[in-house]
Parts: sequence; C-alpha cells; structure tokens
Amino acid sequence: MTLRVGVIGTGMIGQDHIRRLTHVVSGAEVVAVNDADGDVARQVAAGLKNATVHATGENLIADPAVDAVIVCSWGPTHEAFVLASIAAGKPVFCEKPLATTPEACRNIIDAEVAHGSRLVQVGFMRRYDAAYRALKAVIDSGEIGAPLMYSSGHRNPSVPAHYTKDMAIVDTAVHDFDVTRWLLGEELAAIRVIAAKPNSLGGDLQDPLLMVVETESGVLVNVETSVNIRYGYDIRGEVIGETGTAALADRGPVVVRSGNRVSSSVPEDWRQRFIAAYDVEFQEWIAAVAAGEGATGPSAWDGYAAQVVCDAGVAALYSGDRVVIELVDKPALYARPSERPKGSR
Amino acid sequence: MTLRVGVIGTGMIGQDHIRRLTHVVSGAEVVAVNDADGDVARQVAAGLKNATVHATGENLIADPAVDAVIVCSWGPTHEAFVLASIAAGKPVFCEKPLATTPEACRNIIDAEVAHGSRLVQVGFMRRYDAAYRALKAVIDSGEIGAPLMYSSGHRNPSVPAHYTKDMAIVDTAVHDFDVTRWLLGEELAAIRVIAAKPNSLGGDLQDPLLMVVETESGVLVNVETSVNIRYGYDIRGEVIGETGTAALADRGPVVVRSGNRVSSSVPEDWRQRFIAAYDVEFQEWIAAVAAGEGATGPSAWDGYAAQVVCDAGVAALYSGDRVVIELVDKPALYARPSERPKGSR
Amino acid sequence: MTLRVGVIGTGMIGQDHIRRLTHVVSGAEVVAVNDADGDVARQVAAGLKNATVHATGENLIADPAVDAVIVCSWGPTHEAFVLASIAAGKPVFCEKPLATTPEACRNIIDAEVAHGSRLVQVGFMRRYDAAYRALKAVIDSGEIGAPLMYSSGHRNPSVPAHYTKDMAIVDTAVHDFDVTRWLLGEELAAIRVIAAKPNSLGGDLQDPLLMVVETESGVLVNVETSVNIRYGYDIRGEVIGETGTAALADRGPVVVRSGNRVSSSVPEDWRQRFIAAYDVEFQEWIAAVAAGEGATGPSAWDGYAAQVVCDAGVAALYSGDRVVIELVDKPALYARPSERPKGSR
Amino acid sequence: MTLRVGVIGTGMIGQDHIRRLTHVVSGAEVVAVNDADGDVARQVAAGLKNATVHATGENLIADPAVDAVIVCSWGPTHEAFVLASIAAGKPVFCEKPLATTPEACRNIIDAEVAHGSRLVQVGFMRRYDAAYRALKAVIDSGEIGAPLMYSSGHRNPSVPAHYTKDMAIVDTAVHDFDVTRWLLGEELAAIRVIAAKPNSLGGDLQDPLLMVVETESGVLVNVETSVNIRYGYDIRGEVIGETGTAALADRGPVVVRSGNRVSSSVPEDWRQRFIAAYDVEFQEWIAAVAAGEGATGPSAWDGYAAQVVCDAGVAALYSGDRVVIELVDKPALYARPSERPKGSR
Repeated sequence: MTLRVGVIGTGMIGQDHIRRLTHVVSGAEVVAVNDADGDVARQVAAGLKNATVHATGENLIADPAVDAVIVCSWGPTHEAFVLASIAAGKPVFCEKPLATTPEACRNIIDAEVAHGSRLVQVGFMRRYDAAYRALKAVIDSGEIGAPLMYSSGHRNPSVPAHYTKDMAIVDTAVHDFDVTRWLLGEELAAIRVIAAKPNSLGGDLQDPLLMVVETESGVLVNVETSVNIRYGYDIRGEVIGETGTAALADRGPVVVRSGNRVSSSVPEDWRQRFIAAYDVEFQEWIAAVAAGEGATGPSAWDGYAAQVVCDAGVAALYSGDRVVIELVDKPALYARPSERPKGSR
Repeated sequence: MTLRVGVIGTGMIGQDHIRRLTHVVSGAEVVAVNDADGDVARQVAAGLKNATVHATGENLIADPAVDAVIVCSWGPTHEAFVLASIAAGKPVFCEKPLATTPEACRNIIDAEVAHGSRLVQVGFMRRYDAAYRALKAVIDSGEIGAPLMYSSGHRNPSVPAHYTKDMAIVDTAVHDFDVTRWLLGEELAAIRVIAAKPNSLGGDLQDPLLMVVETESGVLVNVETSVNIRYGYDIRGEVIGETGTAALADRGPVVVRSGNRVSSSVPEDWRQRFIAAYDVEFQEWIAAVAAGEGATGPSAWDGYAAQVVCDAGVAALYSGDRVVIELVDKPALYARPSERPKGSR
Repeated sequence: MTLRVGVIGTGMIGQDHIRRLTHVVSGAEVVAVNDADGDVARQVAAGLKNATVHATGENLIADPAVDAVIVCSWGPTHEAFVLASIAAGKPVFCEKPLATTPEACRNIIDAEVAHGSRLVQVGFMRRYDAAYRALKAVIDSGEIGAPLMYSSGHRNPSVPAHYTKDMAIVDTAVHDFDVTRWLLGEELAAIRVIAAKPNSLGGDLQDPLLMVVETESGVLVNVETSVNIRYGYDIRGEVIGETGTAALADRGPVVVRSGNRVSSSVPEDWRQRFIAAYDVEFQEWIAAVAAGEGATGPSAWDGYAAQVVCDAGVAALYSGDRVVIELVDKPALYARPSERPKGSR
Repeated sequence: MTLRVGVIGTGMIGQDHIRRLTHVVSGAEVVAVNDADGDVARQVAAGLKNATVHATGENLIADPAVDAVIVCSWGPTHEAFVLASIAAGKPVFCEKPLATTPEACRNIIDAEVAHGSRLVQVGFMRRYDAAYRALKAVIDSGEIGAPLMYSSGHRNPSVPAHYTKDMAIVDTAVHDFDVTRWLLGEELAAIRVIAAKPNSLGGDLQDPLLMVVETESGVLVNVETSVNIRYGYDIRGEVIGETGTAALADRGPVVVRSGNRVSSSVPEDWRQRFIAAYDVEFQEWIAAVAAGEGATGPSAWDGYAAQVVCDAGVAALYSGDRVVIELVDKPALYARPSERPKGSR
C-alpha cells in the first residue's frame, strides 16, 4: 500500500521533496518525474530505484502507475497541472502559489467543487512547524484570551538578484498571510503597506516593509519583512490577546557562553528553519491520501485567499492606500477547518 | 553643599520623589513643600526633618532657602510653575507633561532661551533605565547597522476608571514617543493611529492601539499600547537595523521551573519596573544642578516635541488619517544632545 | 530494497518502534514479531500488513525473511538474542542495556570481533537528539576551549512503584554516562555517588543523587538525578571549557506571557522529549544497514562501557567510596568513533 | 542626623565605598579616613568636603566625630579594628574576611556578646543582590518545595598573579559558602574539594574546582569555581527543590541579533555584576545604624562560620578527604535571622 507519487518539476525544491519521500518519510515512493528540462528529469530519475521520466506533466498525471501528484514546477504552470490532476481524480500537492492569479485559483476551486471532494493541497509548510502548532494550541486553549493583535516578523539574510519589489509580498509575506489566517481562523479584510527607511544593502528594493492587515473580526496584524538583514533567517510571531501574549520562542538548541556573550544560534536559511516542517507536511499528506481523504492540509481555498491578499498587498504597496480584500463566497467544501493542531510532537 | 529642594505637588508621585531624595539618593534635602491640598502638604512636611510648607507654589519658588524646584502637581499647573522657576533663575525638574499644550511648551522654551542656559528638565525617566541605556549603546555602537524600524510595546495590566481614550496617547504612548526620539536621535515626522479589535476588559476604550510613526529620516516606528492586558506591566522594544536587531530583554531575575513551565516574573506595575530609573534620574539631576549645569536630562525642547507628537496622535486617532508632525525651529540652546549613554553601571 | 525487520519484544517500547518503522521513517518494514506473551505479539502483528508471529526470538532471528533484528525484550534476555543475531550474521539493534552484566557484554564483543565487522547497535538515543548534537558540535569546534567539567541533570517527574534505588544509576544515569562518553570522546575512569537530602515524595529511594565522575583525561563530571521532581522531564547539560561553556537550551517552542509570568513549557516525559531523536536513530540505523555497514551508532563497546560504569556506580552508591572504573582493552573493531555529529538538521 | 563615618583602608575598595557614601546613597558622610599609606589617605581626604586624616585606625575609631566605622584594610588587620570599634561601642562594617582565623572571629563574637547587642556587619554583598533576594523569596515561598540540592557556579575571567591555590576557597568560594548559608538558612556541615582537569590558562593553579558541601540537614551543595574562564564574570545558582527548581537568570539587559547569533552580554567583572548590591548594602546599613539597630546584615557569626568553612575547605583541598565542619555553639545574640528578603524592589 505504498503511495506511488509523480513529481512535476525536479529543480531544487522538487529534488528536496524526492529525497524526503525516498529517504525520510514512510509510505510513499516516487515512480514518475517530469521537468521542463528533460536532462534534469532523467538525472533525477537515475538516482531512483524505479522511476519513469515523462515528456510532459500531463503525461505524468495520466500515467496509471501514478497515484498522486506533486507539483513543484514554475508558478505559471501550476494551474494547468492542478486542473489536470483534478480531472484525473488524483490527489495533488502543489507548492505555493496554487496559481498566479485569483482567477486561476478560482478555476481550481470550481473544478474541485465540481469533483465533490478535496484533492488539492497547497504547500504552506508553516502550518506543520512545531512552534507554530504550539502557538496555535496556546491561542485555542484560551490561555491568553481572545486574540486582538498579531505581530509577524519575516527576516531573510539576503535575497537573490532576481528578487523584485513585489516579491516581498507575493513570495515572502504570503507565508505570513497564510499562517495568520490559520492561527486566527479567519479571513483577512484589508491591508496597508508602508515602506520603512530603505536598507542600503537592499539595492533598489523597498526593504524593510511594514504591512498592517486587518482581519474580518478586527484583529490588527502587523507584518515586518526584512529581506536583507544579514544576521540570519528569523521568523518571529507574537499574538496579543486580551489577558496575555504568546510568541514563537528563539529556537537555538544550545546556549554558548563565550567572549562576554551568552548566545544561541539563528538559522542561516529557510531550509534549516523549516526542514522538519516539510517532513511532517509530507508525512501527514501521505497518511491522508493513503486514508482516502484526498487532502487535509491547506486547501485550494487557502491558496486562493492568499493570492487575493497578495494582489491587494501589491496594490497597497503602489498606491499607499488601505486596500480592501474581497473574496468570493466560500464553497461548503471548505467549510471544515482544513487543519487542527495535533497533539504535541 | 547639599542641594535644597522644594517640591510642588505632594501627591503619590511627589511623595515618592521626596522619599527618594530623603532616603535613597545622596546630595539633596527637601526643605519646602506645597500642595493644592494644604493638609496633605503639612502631613508630608511633618515626616521631614526641616521642611517649610508654602501656601502657593509661587511662594515656594521664591523662597531663598530653595535652590531647585520639583514640579509634581496637576498637569495644567506645570506651565506657570516652570515659568516662575525660570524667572527666579532656579533649576526646575518637571514631571511630564512639561505643559498641556504645544503653545505652553513654547512659552517655556522662549523663557529658557531668553534666560540663556538650561534650567528645565522633564521627567522622562526611561532615559535613565539601564536596559534602555544598553539598547541605545548597542545602536550607537553600529553593531546592528543603521536603524530602519523600531517596534515599541507598552502594556499595562489595567487602567483607572478616569482613563480616557486620548490618554493611551498623551499619558501612555508619550513615553514611547520620547524614548524613540532619544534612542534614534531624531524627531518624529508623522503618525497614524489604528485601533485593533477592542479588548472586552477595557470598557469603552479603544484598546489596544497600533501607532505607526515615521521619523524625519524615514525610520518606521510602531507603537503598541495595550492598557488592559492583565498579565503585567511589560515594556518591550526592538530596533531593527540594517544587519541585526537589538531588543529590551525580559527582566525577571530568577528562572523558576515548576508545574511543567520554565518561567520568570513580569513586573506588576510601572513603579516596580522603573524604580531604579527614577533613582538614577534624580541622582544625575542633583549632580548636574550641583555642578551648576542646570539640567542635562530631557529638556524643555523634548517636552515640547513630545507634546506636539501627542497632539498629532490624538488628531490621528479621531481622523484615521496620517497626520504630519510640525515643529518650530529648534533653538541653539538645545542643539547639544541632552544626554548620552553613560558607561555601564 | 526495503529492509525487512523482525522485532523481539512487543511491549510498549517495541510497539512504539514498530509504529515508527511503519508510519514515520522510510526504508523498513516489520515482517516478523515475537514476544514472551504470544497474545500480545499476535495482536501487534494483526495491526501490520504482513508480519509473521514467531514462537521464540531464536526462530525470528533464523527466519530468512528477516534481514535485521530489533531487540526490545526484557533486559536479561538481550545477551542471548544479540549473540544469536551475530551468529546469524544479521544486524541487530538492541535497546539498552546491551546485557545486564559486563561479562555478558564482553561475550557479545567477543562474538562480534570474531565475526569481523560491526552488527550490533545499542539504543542510546540521546546521541541522535538535535540539541546534544549541537552541543557536541560546539565542543568539537573548539569555541569554548578544551572541556574541563561537565554538568548533567536528569530529572523525572516521578518513577513507577517498581523503581529501586539502583535504578537511579543503571536505568536513569546510564544515559548520562553514555552521552558524556560520546560528548567528550573518552572513557570514564572513576565514580563517587553522594546522596542528597531525600525527596519526601520519593518514598524509600535515595533521591536525588549527585554522582561525581572522572574521565580518563581528568574532566570532572557531575550528574544530578532527581526522579521525583514533579515539575517535568528535564534534561540539562553544560560543558565547562577553558574559555567558555556550552549548554543544552530550554526547549519550549512558545513563550507565553500570562499572570505575571513569562514562561515556556517543559516536557512531561521522556517520550515527548526524545521522540524526534528516536526517529533519527532509526532513520540512520536503517540507512547504515541498507548500505551494508551493519551499524554506525552506539556499539557493543559502548554498551559494555556503560555497563561497567553502572556496576561501579552501584558499588559506589553502597560503599560511599570513590570506585575506579576498569575496562578491558578496546578491540580495534571499535577504534573508529562510532558516530560523528552530522550537519545541522 | 547624617551618619558620620570613618573609613579605615582607602585602597580600591575603600575608595569605592567612599564614592558610594558621598555620591550615591543618602544619609552618611565620610568624616575621617586612615590608611597604612598616609599619602593615599591624604589624597582621598583631599577629594572630600570635610574629612580628617588619622595616623592610625585606632585613632580614627576613637575620634568622637566618628559615629560608625568601615574597615577595608588588609585582612590581617581586621580583628584589631573590629575589636576596637566594639570596645568604643561603635557600629562597624567590616569587609570580608571578618578575621583571618576562626579563633580571631571568635574573639570578635565574644566581645560583641559581652557588649550585649550587635555592632558588627560583614561585607557579604551578595545578600543585597536583587537576583539572590528574588531567589531566596522563591525558596521561602515554598513554590519549589523543600530545597534538596544547590548548585553554585563562580566564574572569573582571570585572576591576578598573586592568586594562590587556597584563594579559590578563601577568596572566591567564600561568597558561595555565605550565600548558601543565607539562602538555605542553615549551617554547612562537611566539605569535599575535587580538582577538575586543570585549565591550561591558569598556570599552576588547580582550576577549576568542584566543592561538594553538605548542610546540617543534608542538602547537597556543589560549588564550581572557574577563575580563568575568560568569557566573563558569571555567577550561577540553582536550587533544586522537591517539586521544582529556581535559578539566577542571565542578566543581560538587551538581546542582540547579529551574525547568526541571538545574544546578551555577560558582565566583565564583579564590580559590574554587584555594583547595585553594594549600593543597597550600604543604604540598608546606614538605615539600620541610624535607627540604632547597630547592624541587621551579615553578622560576626556569619563571618566566623564562613571562616570555619574556608579552613575546612583548604584542609579538604590538600587532603582529598571529606572534612567535617565544626562550629562552636551559637550565642543567642545571633539567633534571630540576620536578614530576611525584602519586598520586591
């Protein structure tokens, strides 16, 4: 009963997931791969026991040996591959973004609703991070009262040359948007984006940014993105409730006393910070698919909502205005919370 | 050469300063007191070795036995007492606010400039707190690069019944405004005030609030005020620089492991949090006055600037708009930084 | 190329490892089980896809469908099962203790040396814990200079009724002994055991205990065992080097501010604390066995050395004396360090 | 009613106390000084408003203008100056050691008992440190149950060339001994001293040392002294109770994120660490003397007990044995606890 998986897109992230499915988590086997660059796909397949190389993603999806699909290809191709997977009735795990426009996301929602049950999961891995889960558990326990504010910090030591102004929102803050929706259990309703004094290490980028986001119920969220801050990859978050607060802890495993400092380490990059979350994400996805549930993690609706917030964020970045976030009605298919905190682990 | 001090206003804060001057710090003696309630003044004087009770603040200021004046009376009376002290050529320490309007503050500035040297110090005690001084020392060291953002949190467990909506700005956030100006060494230029989902424990107050403040050079400051948060009196602050950040540490002196928690204590109120800062504030004021410097701490200009920011903040609270903060030209008398971080102590 | 594993002993720990091999880590399948209680074995097998129940551990070991053996049965049976596995030329993972006497451990060493390559791994899971690995990495980096002292704390909220005085050493501190040998890369040479004022919650036990252990090179190790301390399961460790120290950090993922405390959580038991370490332990064991290496983790030598230290510790507990720890010569088979810290993960 | 103080010994520590009495704490004035080096005494007096230089300590004590005496001279002179102060009926604050032998300490006790009320206070400043007081408050609150063990760490970055082997006990660990007696409220009963692997930066010293001390009631105390550890001056302490533990927190006021580390500072030396404790120590001494109580802090008995423990410790260091600590009967004068934790401040 091993789940036979096909992977579309065998670049860095695709290869990492293939390694994970093959050597780390149990219950799945990669049996098919495809990439826009056939040579890369063939090279990757050569490292596997028994994997077919497909000329196109569509062929891979159609392969009867493939039980479920993972999409790690270039963002603009996601819509077509996810729709094809739904058409084939196969569970599909799609890295973010679900699709590059809200309209494309709605096409996927429509197809999945027509199918009648969930098949699509989006790769918002923070929901599988032990610290975020513990944070959600504290909120849900009522220990700090009803949440009133949330402060989210997203810090990268540096970004690649192709990183553009918009990417602080659509590539970086999108994770903060999703995890905010999940932590608070509600949609985001409006967004302002305010530029701070620019970091001279960030070239022409407007960096850092402060985004002030309001949720449906009025919780005020501020998201700081600092993508050239050098000192490390650091994810911060504090929920301010009526009677207390809860925050992600610093995560260094060791405390060193040296040279008049007491210190612990900060991760160097997102891989280091979230590697265990990715493992759990796939372990739970495999278990859900194997149990015939299709998907229990972040849904097409979550992918859509994130995309609408990103669009509003980009509009707010350019206009300087408070931009209202408007979503279509939520189909009943997504009514059930897509995920609950699991027991401590 | 003991400094002979007269105290106007012998309510709670006045009595605390009298205790401090009498029993804690060296170099001063309280020789005269005055209060709107003469009985209170007489009672306080009875506890002192050798203190005269004056019928009016003006009389106290005029008393030749009084070398320097401390003003702890009701805010609306500050302007007159400070102006009288300047007229008498006596150093005067005035609790915040310096005066209740920017215009009144400007009157004081004009009088002090006319006098030709500094006599006025305003009671912004945070500048004397060891943690804030250490924070400023890190900024000034360049260790985290140029500051780009500053995040300030001001949390009170509860506020008295007479606390009104505006007081979150003029009474609470005013400390954050002053300490921001001091930490960053520049003026504030604009302010937005955004209300979060209201705390149900806060009655009709708009609490918590998020204030987004811009400095002259573009540093983006966000100030969170939560004045009904129950869990304790907690002052937070993190400066985000180009290459790192520096934050006030949690201050609990002891770590307790008990009942599946590792914990340390949070102060119950501002007295507990800032008692040592008040001690240092007066120690340094006495030393400066004794040295003939008049005042080296927060100046009339600082009091004025804080008041203008507060006015702008209240306007922003009611309008919902971004309000520009406009100051008059800064007299040369205040050109020199009013205070520098001292060596570790 | 899935590794086919047989599990001897299907009690609590055996069942947990079966869950782990089946649902968490990749690359192995449990194909055979045995237990002293046949009903339990049959029940466990019924939950597996394709597992044979064997009447005896020996039968299981002899089963050609079994590639490798995991021994989780009662301690006194370990020697026989490990020897049988070696005789069969099959890799064997044995939960601690390797055997209940140093002599029995030496029998295993002799058999493995005769076999000519490593087949045996002992279940000292702490070596797979991320925090201990980070601690070892700091030591090995030279950042704190040569280690001079090590302070180890082992705290249990409570122990079961059958827990006897000796078990503080042979069941509890044995983990500290092994991890000390591994962290410092040398053998232990002498031990004193000193009883503290007894915890009234610990009945007749001598609890807590302080063990003062000397390594070959003179590093002084103090081990505190507190097995009725109620507040949580807490593992502490600090290495004191020539120029600095390195310690295991507190591990709570979330910081909560509530009720005048800033706090984070302490694990409730060892499962919660070391669950991830067990996962890594088996992932690496499976990878090593699959690669034909037999075992790369804690060796029969490590199991033997731990047992000798435990014997000396028990003697020291009863005599009050400093007891010298004497080991036989180390066979060349074990010359190579049994494990190195891996890259951060 | 300013307390007129004479200071015997105007070296580094004497000068620091003179600065403290003159410029920091209230209620005292230094009116007389004496030093073995008359030039130094004259220089120090020149910096004071109104201080007489005495040719001998005895003269200073006899001076009717002197209300109370502070002894900061060389240890071997302490006995005579303290006895002379008692003979003169004057309160005397004596830096540690009270005297250099237990016999000399007993002479002082006998004289003070004959006098009939307390006049002597010994300079164990740790009892005035905010963190130690908070630690004692937690113990006394019962929150962690009855204390069973105490772990004390005393780390110096380096020691001067004249520092000898014994000084790790009589100069360094003596503070740990006193604070242990005070925290636990009982006497120490036996001591072992065990040398760790020597720090190569410590020359011929046996450093670090582990001292295992037993209290009367059986609490087990381990004291680590590391006096060449370079990284900073770091004082650690954790009390292990029946149901929890309480420890001195790390004290850095600011958390810096920089270069892949989250860090806070460690003090460079004992002055930096305990400066505030010295201030409180003298503030409370002045208040007690002014109130006619003679002394409320560490008593001659405390000075005696510390000296006996030091003697036993040195014997244990040389013999390697467990040495029993034997005290004479405690006079009723010292029955009342010499100090209680004050309310949080």
